[in-house]
Amino acid sequence: MPLTKGTDELELNLSVDCVIFTIQNAGLKVLLTKLVPVMKWMLPGGFISKSENANQAAHRILKFRTGVDNIYLNQFQIFSNPERFSFSLHMQKVGMSEEDSGFLEQLPKRVISIGYFALVNLESIHPTGGVLEEESCWCDVDDLPELEYDHHQIIKEALMALRKEVYFRPIVYMLLPEKFTLPELQSLYEVILGKSLDRGSFQRKMLRWDIFERLEERRGGVAHKRPFLYRFDNKKYQIAIEQGISFGM
Amino acid sequence: MPLTKGTDELELNLSVDCVIFTIQNAGLKVLLTKLVPVMKWMLPGGFISKSENANQAAHRILKFRTGVDNIYLNQFQIFSNPERFSFSLHMQKVGMSEEDSGFLEQLPKRVISIGYFALVNLESIHPTGGVLEEESCWCDVDDLPELEYDHHQIIKEALMALRKEVYFRPIVYMLLPEKFTLPELQSLYEVILGKSLDRGSFQRKMLRWDIFERLEERRGGVAHKRPFLYRFDNKKYQIAIEQGISFGM
Repeated sequence: MPLTKGTDELELNLSVDCVIFTIQNAGLKVLLTKLVPVMKWMLPGGFISKSENANQAAHRILKFRTGVDNIYLNQFQIFSNPERFSFSLHMQKVGMSEEDSGFLEQLPKRVISIGYFALVNLESIHPTGGVLEEESCWCDVDDLPELEYDHHQIIKEALMALRKEVYFRPIVYMLLPEKFTLPELQSLYEVILGKSLDRGSFQRKMLRWDIFERLEERRGGVAHKRPFLYRFDNKKYQIAIEQGISFGM
Repeated sequence: MPLTKGTDELELNLSVDCVIFTIQNAGLKVLLTKLVPVMKWMLPGGFISKSENANQAAHRILKFRTGVDNIYLNQFQIFSNPERFSFSLHMQKVGMSEEDSGFLEQLPKRVISIGYFALVNLESIHPTGGVLEEESCWCDVDDLPELEYDHHQIIKEALMALRKEVYFRPIVYMLLPEKFTLPELQSLYEVILGKSLDRGSFQRKMLRWDIFERLEERRGGVAHKRPFLYRFDNKKYQIAIEQGISFGM
């Protein structure tokens, strides 16, 4: 949570933190960044500016910190423990000089953070690193390094929100190529939910949703046992959403 | 959003607003309060204190403003439009004196509000009115009066969050008596979702969830055509939740 603009322009007790998930090598990953060597890994985040709402802030900050733009961010929870962040400790860590001590007194005693998550296709986004970043990485959600502040908790809650979301809306389609097989779809769900699913039951449920169009093509295209290819039907999906259909597993 | 404690103790740019739903006379209602005659109706809300997190604030404020205690509040969204609330306008409305003008300059230019919703059984809660309230009412969500600030939008978003929640978790059980019939359960869903549901399809889905125990009793207890009574099985429900079952309609 660096001071990325003149502090006069920022709401210094309000930040956003972005939990960007992707699938890589059949594992669920989250985007982490590192500001300076002395600091631990953290989520890309920053302060809300006085003239913008939280969604605008999340998009601006994500772009600034990682180069990632134009993704659908879900606001999922706020983190408001009064002890979760301290400017005083933060400034010690980044090695701010004694000249800043006076400045420190004007800073708020606590910072509330608004959590956002997104599920992105690794091929469609390209984290370039931000102006402030020393480095960034895609890190396995089951094998996270030490993180700053309450970022472990934020990731844990984001993961629960993501899992709830895939039950309600088939947002995994954002990760799919145009044509895919049902076993490929099932693998995606299994990685996100972190558990195995019964093949027959999974396929029945997916087909009952009636939002995938079966093509007259099969993967490989030769043997009759090879799985059919499907295509996501956005029109049917929008109608289903309007009708209030949920996509429970 | 009155100043309910010494302002030194409050985060004056952070408030909570509570959307408390109930069912009354087969209609979905929301709890509204009125501070002073010159102001419009509004949601019960207030500022977060410096020593508490947002959930603690929501419970404290709801108790203080309405007398309602011990209910499960769902944090669902934050409202962060920079123009949504102005202390200056607020103080004009409540008729604060000129002496307060100096004080006004120290107040933040904007207030972000954290939205909570709950679904409560009218018989289990008793809004007594708060210290500040002139009056309160249960108002039909389809027939709201003029409201202060962005409270129309907050209620609209809360209703969407509630509907999403009943798809995912059978929170309607909180509204049910110990024993109920499937038609009674269906009526609850229809009121909350604001639409009719097919009887056969609804009952099949409910029974597939396997969280209701059918009793050897029927409503009325005489004729064989009278519907069976059911009881919510919290143990089965907890197991289902742990297994990640969603309760899609």
